Amino acid sequence: MKVKLAKNYGFCFGVKRAIEIAEQQKNSATMGPLIHNQKEISRLKNNFNVDLYENISDVKKNDTVIIRTHGITKDDLQTLKKHDAKVINATCPFVTTPQQIVKNMSKENYSVIIFGDAQHPEVKGVKSYGEDVHVVKSIDELKDLDLKYDKIATVAQTTKQKDQYSEIVNALMIRYKEVRVFNTICDATFENQAAAQELSKEVDIMIVIGGKNSSNTKQLFYICEANTTTYHIEDEKELEKSWFKDKKLCGITAGASTPDWIIKNVSKAIENI
Amino acid sequence: MKVKLAKNYGFCFGVKRAIEIAEQQKNSATMGPLIHNQKEISRLKNNFNVDLYENISDVKKNDTVIIRTHGITKDDLQTLKKHDAKVINATCPFVTTPQQIVKNMSKENYSVIIFGDAQHPEVKGVKSYGEDVHVVKSIDELKDLDLKYDKIATVAQTTKQKDQYSEIVNALMIRYKEVRVFNTICDATFENQAAAQELSKEVDIMIVIGGKNSSNTKQLFYICEANTTTYHIEDEKELEKSWFKDKKLCGITAGASTPDWIIKNVSKAIENI
Repeated sequence: MKVKLAKNYGFCFGVKRAIEIAEQQKNSATMGPLIHNQKEISRLKNNFNVDLYENISDVKKNDTVIIRTHGITKDDLQTLKKHDAKVINATCPFVTTPQQIVKNMSKENYSVIIFGDAQHPEVKGVKSYGEDVHVVKSIDELKDLDLKYDKIATVAQTTKQKDQYSEIVNALMIRYKEVRVFNTICDATFENQAAAQELSKEVDIMIVIGGKNSSNTKQLFYICEANTTTYHIEDEKELEKSWFKDKKLCGITAGASTPDWIIKNVSKAIENI
Repeated sequence: MKVKLAKNYGFCFGVKRAIEIAEQQKNSATMGPLIHNQKEISRLKNNFNVDLYENISDVKKNDTVIIRTHGITKDDLQTLKKHDAKVINATCPFVTTPQQIVKNMSKENYSVIIFGDAQHPEVKGVKSYGEDVHVVKSIDELKDLDLKYDKIATVAQTTKQKDQYSEIVNALMIRYKEVRVFNTICDATFENQAAAQELSKEVDIMIVIGGKNSSNTKQLFYICEANTTTYHIEDEKELEKSWFKDKKLCGITAGASTPDWIIKNVSKAIENI
Protein backbone atom coordinates (compact mmCIF):
# COMPACT_ATOMS: atom_id res chain seq x y z
CA MET A 1 0.00 0.00 0.00
CA LYS A 2 1.38 3.41 -1.01
CA VAL A 3 1.46 6.06 1.73
CA LYS A 4 1.61 9.87 1.58
CA LEU A 5 2.06 12.17 4.59
CA ALA A 6 0.28 15.50 4.85
CA LYS A 7 2.50 18.56 4.24
CA ASN A 8 2.00 19.52 7.91
CA TYR A 9 1.02 17.12 10.66
CA GLY A 10 1.57 16.22 14.31
CA PHE A 11 3.82 18.20 16.62
CA CYS A 12 4.27 21.88 16.07
CA PHE A 13 7.70 23.47 15.95
CA GLY A 14 7.64 24.35 19.66
CA VAL A 15 6.81 20.83 20.85
CA LYS A 16 9.41 19.21 18.56
CA ARG A 17 11.99 21.60 19.94
CA ALA A 18 10.98 20.91 23.57
CA ILE A 19 11.30 17.14 23.07
CA GLU A 20 14.75 17.51 21.49
CA ILE A 21 15.78 19.64 24.47
CA ALA A 22 14.42 17.02 26.91
CA GLU A 23 16.27 14.19 25.11
CA GLN A 24 19.51 16.10 25.66
CA GLN A 25 18.85 16.42 29.43
CA LYS A 26 19.13 12.91 30.82
CA ASN A 27 18.13 12.53 34.50
CA SER A 28 16.19 15.79 34.48
CA ALA A 29 12.50 16.52 35.21
CA THR A 30 9.87 18.57 33.39
CA MET A 31 7.78 21.07 35.33
CA GLY A 32 4.31 19.66 34.47
CA PRO A 33 3.76 17.23 31.56
CA LEU A 34 5.82 18.25 28.51
CA ILE A 35 3.01 17.17 26.16
CA HIS A 36 -0.51 15.77 26.46
CA ASN A 37 0.54 12.29 25.35
CA GLN A 38 1.21 9.63 27.97
CA LYS A 39 3.14 7.37 25.56
CA GLU A 40 5.64 10.12 24.78
CA ILE A 41 6.07 10.99 28.47
CA SER A 42 6.76 7.29 29.22
CA ARG A 43 9.27 7.14 26.36
CA LEU A 44 11.18 10.16 27.73
CA LYS A 45 11.15 8.53 31.20
CA ASN A 46 12.27 5.10 29.94
CA ASN A 47 14.87 6.19 27.39
CA PHE A 48 16.24 9.39 28.96
CA ASN A 49 15.13 9.20 32.60
CA VAL A 50 13.24 12.49 32.19
CA ASP A 51 10.96 12.66 35.23
CA LEU A 52 7.77 14.68 35.78
CA TYR A 53 7.22 17.19 38.62
CA GLU A 54 3.66 18.30 39.22
CA ASN A 55 4.53 21.05 41.75
CA ILE A 56 7.39 23.45 42.24
CA SER A 57 7.71 22.16 45.81
CA ASP A 58 8.80 18.78 44.30
CA VAL A 59 12.01 20.41 43.04
CA LYS A 60 15.16 19.57 44.99
CA LYS A 61 18.50 21.40 45.12
CA ASN A 62 20.65 20.93 41.99
CA ASP A 63 17.80 19.32 40.06
CA THR A 64 17.72 20.01 36.33
CA VAL A 65 14.24 21.30 35.60
CA ILE A 66 12.81 21.69 32.09
CA ILE A 67 10.22 24.44 31.54
CA ARG A 68 7.65 23.22 29.03
CA THR A 69 6.46 24.96 25.83
CA HIS A 70 3.65 26.91 27.59
CA GLY A 71 6.18 28.68 29.81
CA ILE A 72 5.68 29.46 33.51
CA THR A 73 5.05 32.59 35.56
CA LYS A 74 7.83 35.00 36.47
CA ASP A 75 7.32 34.16 40.16
CA ASP A 76 7.62 30.42 39.54
CA LEU A 77 10.82 31.02 37.60
CA GLN A 78 12.19 33.01 40.57
CA THR A 79 11.20 30.21 42.94
CA LEU A 80 12.97 27.61 40.78
CA LYS A 81 16.12 29.69 40.80
CA LYS A 82 15.89 30.05 44.61
CA HIS A 83 15.81 26.25 44.83
CA ASP A 84 19.22 26.32 43.14
CA ALA A 85 17.74 24.25 40.33
CA LYS A 86 19.39 24.25 36.91
CA VAL A 87 16.64 25.66 34.71
CA ILE A 88 16.41 24.53 31.08
CA ASN A 89 13.97 26.73 29.23
CA ALA A 90 11.94 24.87 26.59
CA THR A 91 9.31 27.62 26.41
CA CYS A 92 8.18 27.90 22.79
CA PRO A 93 9.70 31.01 21.16
CA PHE A 94 6.15 31.89 20.03
CA VAL A 95 5.25 32.10 23.74
CA THR A 96 8.43 33.92 24.80
CA THR A 97 7.45 36.67 22.33
CA PRO A 98 4.15 37.66 24.05
CA GLN A 99 5.91 37.40 27.45
CA GLN A 100 8.47 39.98 26.28
CA ILE A 101 5.79 42.16 24.64
CA VAL A 102 3.80 42.26 27.91
CA LYS A 103 6.96 43.17 29.81
CA ASN A 104 7.92 45.98 27.39
CA MET A 105 4.42 47.40 27.00
CA SER A 106 4.00 47.54 30.78
CA LYS A 107 7.26 49.43 31.06
CA GLU A 108 5.95 51.93 28.47
CA ASN A 109 2.74 52.44 30.49
CA TYR A 110 0.29 50.56 28.30
CA SER A 111 -2.60 48.61 29.79
CA VAL A 112 -2.26 45.13 28.32
CA ILE A 113 -5.14 42.90 27.24
CA ILE A 114 -4.52 39.21 26.59
CA PHE A 115 -7.13 37.46 24.46
CA GLY A 116 -7.14 33.95 25.91
CA ASP A 117 -8.21 31.61 28.70
CA ALA A 118 -7.14 32.97 32.09
CA GLN A 119 -6.69 29.42 33.44
CA HIS A 120 -4.39 28.26 30.64
CA PRO A 121 -0.73 27.90 31.79
CA GLU A 122 0.51 29.83 28.74
CA VAL A 123 -1.75 32.80 29.57
CA LYS A 124 -0.87 32.70 33.28
CA GLY A 125 2.78 32.87 32.31
CA VAL A 126 2.39 35.69 29.77
CA LYS A 127 0.22 37.72 32.20
CA SER A 128 2.84 37.50 34.95
CA TYR A 129 5.33 39.57 32.93
CA GLY A 130 3.44 42.87 33.21
CA GLU A 131 1.74 45.24 35.65
CA ASP A 132 -1.70 46.23 34.40
CA VAL A 133 -2.51 43.07 32.44
CA HIS A 134 -6.05 41.76 31.87
CA VAL A 135 -7.27 38.53 30.30
CA VAL A 136 -10.49 38.41 28.24
CA LYS A 137 -12.02 35.30 26.72
CA SER A 138 -14.64 37.17 24.70
CA ILE A 139 -15.73 40.61 23.58
CA ASP A 140 -18.38 40.68 26.38
CA GLU A 141 -15.69 40.73 29.05
CA LEU A 142 -14.25 44.02 27.78
CA LYS A 143 -16.96 46.11 29.45
CA ASP A 144 -15.96 44.91 32.93
CA LEU A 145 -12.34 45.95 32.59
CA ASP A 146 -10.88 48.63 34.82
CA LEU A 147 -7.79 49.78 32.92
CA LYS A 148 -5.11 51.99 34.39
CA TYR A 149 -3.98 53.64 31.13
CA ASP A 150 -5.68 54.94 27.97
CA LYS A 151 -3.11 53.36 25.68
CA ILE A 152 -3.78 49.68 25.10
CA ALA A 153 -1.56 46.85 23.90
CA THR A 154 -3.02 43.48 22.97
CA VAL A 155 -1.59 39.98 22.57
CA ALA A 156 -3.39 36.68 21.96
CA GLN A 157 -2.91 33.18 23.30
CA THR A 158 -1.01 31.37 20.51
CA THR A 159 -3.83 28.89 19.78
CA LYS A 160 -6.69 31.40 19.49
CA GLN A 161 -8.57 32.11 16.27
CA LYS A 162 -7.74 35.23 14.34
CA ASP A 163 -11.30 36.33 13.57
CA GLN A 164 -12.18 36.35 17.28
CA TYR A 165 -9.03 38.34 18.02
CA SER A 166 -10.12 40.86 15.35
CA GLU A 167 -13.46 41.32 17.11
CA ILE A 168 -11.70 42.21 20.36
CA VAL A 169 -9.41 44.66 18.56
CA ASN A 170 -12.35 46.30 16.75
CA ALA A 171 -14.16 46.89 20.02
CA LEU A 172 -11.04 48.38 21.60
CA MET A 173 -10.04 50.66 18.73
CA ILE A 174 -13.28 52.65 18.88
CA ARG A 175 -12.87 53.19 22.64
CA TYR A 176 -9.18 54.01 22.95
CA LYS A 177 -6.92 56.49 21.18
CA GLU A 178 -4.17 53.94 20.64
CA VAL A 179 -4.36 50.16 20.41
CA ARG A 180 -1.10 48.37 19.76
CA VAL A 181 -2.00 45.01 18.27
CA PHE A 182 0.54 42.20 18.37
CA ASN A 183 -0.35 39.17 16.30
CA THR A 184 0.93 36.37 18.52
CA ILE A 185 -1.36 33.68 17.13
CA CYS A 186 0.52 30.63 15.86
CA ASP A 187 -0.56 29.06 12.58
CA ALA A 188 0.52 25.48 13.41
CA THR A 189 -2.97 24.10 14.16
CA PHE A 190 -4.45 25.76 11.08
CA GLU A 191 -1.56 24.58 8.88
CA ASN A 192 -2.22 20.95 9.92
CA GLN A 193 -5.89 21.42 9.05
CA ALA A 194 -5.18 23.00 5.66
CA ALA A 195 -2.70 20.23 4.78
CA ALA A 196 -5.21 17.51 5.83
CA GLN A 197 -7.85 19.17 3.67
CA GLU A 198 -5.53 19.20 0.66
CA LEU A 199 -4.22 15.64 1.02
CA SER A 200 -7.63 14.06 1.70
CA LYS A 201 -8.79 15.26 -1.71
CA GLU A 202 -6.14 13.29 -3.59
CA VAL A 203 -6.09 9.93 -1.75
CA ASP A 204 -8.47 6.92 -1.58
CA ILE A 205 -8.27 6.60 2.20
CA MET A 206 -7.07 8.82 5.09
CA ILE A 207 -5.68 7.64 8.43
CA VAL A 208 -5.83 10.27 11.20
CA ILE A 209 -3.59 9.43 14.18
CA GLY A 210 -4.15 10.92 17.64
CA GLY A 211 -5.82 10.57 21.05
CA LYS A 212 -9.49 9.63 20.86
CA ASN A 213 -10.25 12.59 23.17
CA SER A 214 -7.99 15.07 21.38
CA SER A 215 -10.17 17.86 19.99
CA ASN A 216 -7.69 18.95 17.34
CA THR A 217 -7.39 15.31 16.10
CA LYS A 218 -11.18 15.01 15.87
CA GLN A 219 -11.21 18.24 13.87
CA LEU A 220 -8.73 16.70 11.40
CA PHE A 221 -10.97 13.61 11.15
CA TYR A 222 -14.06 15.69 10.27
CA ILE A 223 -12.13 17.66 7.64
CA CYS A 224 -10.83 14.47 5.94
CA GLU A 225 -14.08 12.54 6.25
CA ALA A 226 -15.82 15.14 4.09
CA ASN A 227 -13.45 14.28 1.23
CA THR A 228 -12.66 10.56 1.46
CA THR A 229 -12.97 7.35 3.54
CA THR A 230 -11.31 8.21 6.85
CA TYR A 231 -10.33 6.31 10.02
CA HIS A 232 -9.19 7.74 13.37
CA ILE A 233 -6.68 5.56 15.28
CA GLU A 234 -4.34 5.99 18.26
CA ASP A 235 -1.64 3.60 17.00
CA GLU A 236 -0.88 0.89 14.42
CA LYS A 237 -2.55 -1.87 16.46
CA GLU A 238 -5.97 -0.52 15.49
CA LEU A 239 -5.36 -0.83 11.74
CA GLU A 240 -7.57 -3.34 9.88
CA LYS A 241 -6.54 -4.88 6.54
CA SER A 242 -10.08 -4.74 5.15
CA TRP A 243 -10.04 -0.92 5.16
CA PHE A 244 -7.41 -0.90 2.41
CA LYS A 245 -9.07 -3.32 -0.02
CA ASP A 246 -9.11 -1.84 -3.55
CA LYS A 247 -7.41 1.35 -2.29
CA LYS A 248 -4.29 2.64 -4.03
CA LEU A 249 -3.03 5.65 -2.06
CA CYS A 250 -3.34 6.18 1.71
CA GLY A 251 -2.95 9.67 3.22
CA ILE A 252 -1.74 10.14 6.79
CA THR A 253 -2.10 13.04 9.19
CA ALA A 254 -1.81 13.34 12.96
CA GLY A 255 -3.00 15.53 15.83
CA ALA A 256 -0.75 18.07 17.52
CA SER A 257 0.14 15.74 20.43
CA THR A 258 1.05 12.69 18.34
CA PRO A 259 4.78 11.85 18.42
CA ASP A 260 6.63 11.16 15.17
CA TRP A 261 7.60 7.64 16.19
CA ILE A 262 3.94 6.58 16.48
CA ILE A 263 3.28 8.10 13.04
CA LYS A 264 6.27 6.18 11.61
CA ASN A 265 5.01 2.90 13.10
CA VAL A 266 1.59 3.44 11.53
CA SER A 267 3.12 4.41 8.19
CA LYS A 268 5.33 1.28 8.06
CA ALA A 269 2.43 -0.98 9.02
CA ILE A 270 0.30 0.42 6.20
CA GLU A 271 3.14 0.08 3.66
CA ASN A 272 3.34 -3.61 4.58
CA ILE A 273 -0.33 -4.25 3.90
CA MET B 1 -43.39 79.72 17.13
CA LYS B 2 -41.24 77.87 19.68
CA VAL B 3 -37.78 76.81 18.51
CA LYS B 4 -35.38 74.14 19.80
CA LEU B 5 -31.82 73.64 18.55
CA ALA B 6 -30.28 70.18 18.20
CA LYS B 7 -27.76 69.27 20.92
CA ASN B 8 -25.01 69.30 18.24
CA TYR B 9 -25.22 71.14 14.93
CA GLY B 10 -23.23 73.16 12.41
CA PHE B 11 -19.53 73.86 12.74
CA CYS B 12 -17.31 71.35 14.48
CA PHE B 13 -14.87 72.41 17.18
CA GLY B 14 -11.98 72.77 14.68
CA VAL B 15 -13.86 75.07 12.31
CA LYS B 16 -15.22 77.28 15.13
CA ARG B 17 -11.68 77.62 16.45
CA ALA B 18 -10.27 78.47 12.99
CA ILE B 19 -12.87 81.21 12.48
CA GLU B 20 -12.12 82.74 15.88
CA ILE B 21 -8.42 82.71 14.98
CA ALA B 22 -9.17 84.39 11.61
CA GLU B 23 -11.30 87.09 13.27
CA GLN B 24 -8.31 87.98 15.44
CA GLN B 25 -6.03 88.37 12.38
CA LYS B 26 -7.27 91.46 10.56
CA ASN B 27 -5.63 92.07 7.14
CA SER B 28 -4.41 88.50 6.86
CA ALA B 29 -5.09 85.81 4.25
CA THR B 30 -6.06 82.17 4.49
CA MET B 31 -4.15 79.57 2.48
CA GLY B 32 -7.11 78.09 0.56
CA PRO B 33 -10.74 78.65 1.60
CA LEU B 34 -11.12 78.42 5.40
CA ILE B 35 -14.52 76.73 5.03
CA HIS B 36 -16.79 75.52 2.20
CA ASN B 37 -19.26 78.38 2.67
CA GLN B 38 -19.01 81.42 0.42
CA LYS B 39 -21.14 83.62 2.73
CA GLU B 40 -18.78 83.06 5.65
CA ILE B 41 -15.70 83.74 3.51
CA SER B 42 -17.32 87.02 2.34
CA ARG B 43 -18.11 87.96 5.95
CA LEU B 44 -14.49 87.41 7.01
CA LYS B 45 -13.34 89.52 4.03
CA ASN B 46 -15.87 92.32 4.65
CA ASN B 47 -15.62 92.51 8.45
CA PHE B 48 -11.96 91.58 9.09
CA ASN B 49 -10.28 91.99 5.68
CA VAL B 50 -9.25 88.32 5.73
CA ASP B 51 -8.23 87.56 2.16
CA LEU B 52 -7.99 84.24 0.33
CA TYR B 53 -4.84 82.88 -1.33
CA GLU B 54 -5.28 79.94 -3.70
CA ASN B 55 -1.56 79.27 -4.20
CA ILE B 56 1.55 79.56 -2.09
CA SER B 57 3.09 81.69 -4.86
CA ASP B 58 0.45 84.36 -4.02
CA VAL B 59 2.10 84.91 -0.64
CA LYS B 60 4.15 88.08 -0.31
CA LYS B 61 6.88 88.99 2.18
CA ASN B 62 5.58 89.85 5.66
CA ASP B 63 2.06 88.60 4.85
CA THR B 64 0.13 87.03 7.69
CA VAL B 65 -1.02 83.64 6.41
CA ILE B 66 -3.58 81.45 8.17
CA ILE B 67 -3.30 77.68 7.75
CA ARG B 68 -6.78 76.18 7.62
CA THR B 69 -8.20 73.29 9.67
CA HIS B 70 -7.05 70.60 7.18
CA GLY B 71 -3.43 71.59 7.68
CA ILE B 72 -0.80 71.74 4.91
CA THR B 73 2.22 69.68 3.92
CA LYS B 74 5.56 70.02 5.68
CA ASP B 75 7.12 71.32 2.45
CA ASP B 76 4.44 73.99 1.99
CA LEU B 77 5.01 75.09 5.60
CA GLN B 78 8.75 75.40 4.88
CA THR B 79 8.01 77.41 1.73
CA LEU B 80 5.75 79.80 3.66
CA LYS B 81 8.48 80.37 6.20
CA LYS B 82 11.00 81.02 3.40
CA HIS B 83 8.67 83.72 2.09
CA ASP B 84 9.12 85.41 5.49
CA ALA B 85 5.38 85.15 6.00
CA LYS B 86 3.94 85.24 9.52
CA VAL B 87 2.28 81.85 9.80
CA ILE B 88 -0.84 81.49 11.97
CA ASN B 89 -1.65 77.83 12.40
CA ALA B 90 -5.40 77.11 12.52
CA THR B 91 -4.90 73.40 11.80
CA CYS B 92 -7.49 71.48 13.80
CA PRO B 93 -5.86 69.79 16.82
CA PHE B 94 -7.55 66.57 15.66
CA VAL B 95 -5.45 66.86 12.47
CA THR B 96 -2.25 67.90 14.21
CA THR B 97 -2.46 64.64 16.19
CA PRO B 98 -2.16 62.29 13.16
CA GLN B 99 0.56 64.56 11.72
CA GLN B 100 2.61 64.05 14.88
CA ILE B 101 1.82 60.31 15.03
CA VAL B 102 3.08 59.87 11.46
CA LYS B 103 6.22 61.80 12.32
CA ASN B 104 6.93 59.76 15.47
CA MET B 105 6.08 56.37 13.97
CA SER B 106 8.36 57.05 11.00
CA LYS B 107 11.18 57.90 13.39
CA GLU B 108 10.59 54.56 15.16
CA ASN B 109 10.79 52.69 11.82
CA TYR B 110 7.15 51.83 11.33
CA SER B 111 5.58 51.77 7.88
CA VAL B 112 2.55 54.04 8.17
CA ILE B 113 -0.81 53.45 6.51
CA ILE B 114 -3.34 56.28 6.32
CA PHE B 115 -6.95 55.25 5.73
CA GLY B 116 -8.29 58.14 3.68
CA ASP B 117 -8.51 59.88 0.31
CA ALA B 118 -5.04 60.57 -1.09
CA GLN B 119 -6.27 63.76 -2.81
CA HIS B 120 -7.78 65.31 0.35
CA PRO B 121 -5.69 68.23 1.70
CA GLU B 122 -5.83 66.80 5.25
CA VAL B 123 -4.38 63.47 4.06
CA LYS B 124 -1.73 65.15 1.90
CA GLY B 125 -0.64 67.13 4.95
CA VAL B 126 -0.60 64.14 7.34
CA LYS B 127 1.29 61.99 4.78
CA SER B 128 4.02 64.60 4.39
CA TYR B 129 5.16 64.18 7.99
CA GLY B 130 6.64 60.69 7.55
CA GLU B 131 8.97 58.62 5.40
CA ASP B 132 7.33 55.32 4.44
CA VAL B 133 3.71 56.50 4.44
CA HIS B 134 0.97 54.97 2.25
CA VAL B 135 -2.64 56.04 1.71
CA VAL B 136 -5.40 53.46 1.15
CA LYS B 137 -9.04 54.24 0.40
CA SER B 138 -10.23 50.67 0.78
CA ILE B 139 -9.18 47.21 1.86
CA ASP B 140 -8.56 46.24 -1.79
CA GLU B 141 -5.68 48.69 -2.05
CA LEU B 142 -3.72 46.93 0.73
CA LYS B 143 -2.51 44.16 -1.59
CA ASP B 144 -0.66 46.63 -3.83
CA LEU B 145 1.38 48.15 -1.01
CA ASP B 146 5.14 47.80 -0.94
CA LEU B 147 6.03 48.45 2.70
CA LYS B 148 9.55 49.04 3.93
CA TYR B 149 9.06 47.68 7.47
CA ASP B 150 7.17 44.76 9.05
CA LYS B 151 5.84 46.92 11.89
CA ILE B 152 2.80 48.93 10.84
CA ALA B 153 1.18 52.04 12.31
CA THR B 154 -2.22 53.22 11.10
CA VAL B 155 -4.11 56.52 11.30
CA ALA B 156 -7.39 57.52 9.65
CA GLN B 157 -8.60 60.69 7.98
CA THR B 158 -10.69 62.43 10.68
CA THR B 159 -13.99 62.16 8.73
CA LYS B 160 -13.78 58.45 7.88
CA GLN B 161 -16.17 55.84 9.23
CA LYS B 162 -15.01 53.60 12.05
CA ASP B 163 -16.33 50.31 10.69
CA GLN B 164 -14.39 50.78 7.46
CA TYR B 165 -11.26 51.60 9.46
CA SER B 166 -11.77 48.36 11.42
CA GLU B 167 -11.83 46.36 8.18
CA ILE B 168 -8.46 47.78 7.18
CA VAL B 169 -6.99 47.02 10.61
CA ASN B 170 -8.36 43.45 10.55
CA ALA B 171 -6.72 42.78 7.21
CA LEU B 172 -3.41 44.19 8.45
CA MET B 173 -3.30 42.42 11.80
CA ILE B 174 -3.33 38.96 10.23
CA ARG B 175 -0.46 39.90 7.91
CA TYR B 176 1.89 41.77 10.22
CA LYS B 177 3.37 40.98 13.63
CA GLU B 178 2.57 44.41 15.03
CA VAL B 179 -0.09 46.91 14.01
CA ARG B 180 -0.25 50.10 16.02
CA VAL B 181 -3.74 51.47 15.58
CA PHE B 182 -4.39 55.14 16.31
CA ASN B 183 -8.02 56.13 16.39
CA THR B 184 -7.88 59.57 14.78
CA ILE B 185 -11.49 59.61 13.58
CA CYS B 186 -13.45 62.64 14.79
CA ASP B 187 -17.00 62.16 16.02
CA ALA B 188 -18.32 65.62 15.07
CA THR B 189 -20.26 64.59 11.93
CA PHE B 190 -21.78 61.59 13.67
CA GLU B 191 -22.70 63.66 16.73
CA ASN B 192 -24.64 66.11 14.53
CA GLN B 193 -26.50 63.19 12.97
CA ALA B 194 -27.32 61.56 16.30
CA ALA B 195 -28.59 64.88 17.71
CA ALA B 196 -30.75 65.51 14.60
CA GLN B 197 -32.22 62.02 14.94
CA GLU B 198 -33.09 62.64 18.59
CA LEU B 199 -34.57 66.12 18.13
CA SER B 200 -36.63 65.27 15.05
CA LYS B 201 -38.53 62.68 17.10
CA GLU B 202 -39.84 65.26 19.58
CA VAL B 203 -40.81 68.22 17.33
CA ASP B 204 -43.67 68.92 14.84
CA ILE B 205 -41.36 70.32 12.17
CA MET B 206 -37.61 70.32 11.48
CA ILE B 207 -35.62 72.98 9.61
CA VAL B 208 -32.24 71.81 8.27
CA ILE B 209 -29.92 74.68 7.31
CA GLY B 210 -27.02 74.25 4.88
CA GLY B 211 -25.81 74.37 1.27
CA LYS B 212 -28.14 72.62 -1.18
CA ASN B 213 -25.09 70.68 -2.46
CA SER B 214 -23.65 69.86 0.96
CA SER B 215 -23.70 66.09 1.35
CA ASN B 216 -23.61 66.14 5.15
CA THR B 217 -26.59 68.59 5.20
CA LYS B 218 -28.57 66.30 2.87
CA GLN B 219 -27.77 63.41 5.20
CA LEU B 220 -29.26 65.41 8.13
CA PHE B 221 -32.36 66.11 6.00
CA TYR B 222 -32.92 62.40 5.28
CA ILE B 223 -32.51 61.49 8.94
CA CYS B 224 -35.07 64.11 10.09
CA GLU B 225 -37.51 63.49 7.25
CA ALA B 226 -37.97 59.90 8.44
CA ASN B 227 -39.32 61.25 11.76
CA THR B 228 -41.20 64.49 11.04
CA THR B 229 -42.08 67.15 8.43
CA THR B 230 -38.71 68.54 7.35
CA TYR B 231 -37.49 71.42 5.14
CA HIS B 232 -33.95 72.06 3.86
CA ILE B 233 -33.05 75.77 3.46
CA GLU B 234 -29.87 77.80 2.91
CA ASP B 235 -31.02 80.88 4.85
CA GLU B 236 -34.07 82.57 6.42
CA LYS B 237 -35.27 84.05 3.09
CA GLU B 238 -36.50 80.63 2.02
CA LEU B 239 -38.83 80.18 5.04
CA GLU B 240 -42.58 80.03 4.26
CA LYS B 241 -45.22 80.87 6.88
CA SER B 242 -47.56 78.11 5.70
CA TRP B 243 -45.08 75.40 6.80
CA PHE B 244 -45.67 76.29 10.45
CA LYS B 245 -49.49 76.28 10.45
CA ASP B 246 -50.79 74.19 13.41
CA LYS B 247 -47.22 73.37 14.48
CA LYS B 248 -46.13 73.95 18.07
CA LEU B 249 -42.42 73.16 18.28
CA CYS B 250 -39.81 73.65 15.53
CA GLY B 251 -36.47 71.83 15.67
CA ILE B 252 -33.35 73.26 14.01
CA THR B 253 -30.15 71.64 12.87
CA ALA B 254 -27.43 72.70 10.42
CA GLY B 255 -24.72 71.18 8.23
CA ALA B 256 -21.04 71.28 9.15
CA SER B 257 -20.31 74.33 6.95
CA THR B 258 -23.19 76.50 8.18
CA PRO B 259 -22.06 79.52 10.24
CA ASP B 260 -23.75 80.28 13.54
CA TRP B 261 -24.94 83.74 12.40
CA ILE B 262 -27.03 82.18 9.59
CA ILE B 263 -28.51 79.72 12.09
CA LYS B 264 -29.34 82.61 14.46
CA ASN B 265 -31.05 84.55 11.66
CA VAL B 266 -33.19 81.53 10.79
CA SER B 267 -34.00 80.88 14.45
CA LYS B 268 -35.13 84.48 15.04
CA ALA B 269 -37.25 84.53 11.86
CA ILE B 270 -39.07 81.36 12.95
CA GLU B 271 -39.65 82.70 16.48
CA ASN B 272 -41.33 85.73 14.90
CA ILE B 273 -43.78 83.64 12.89
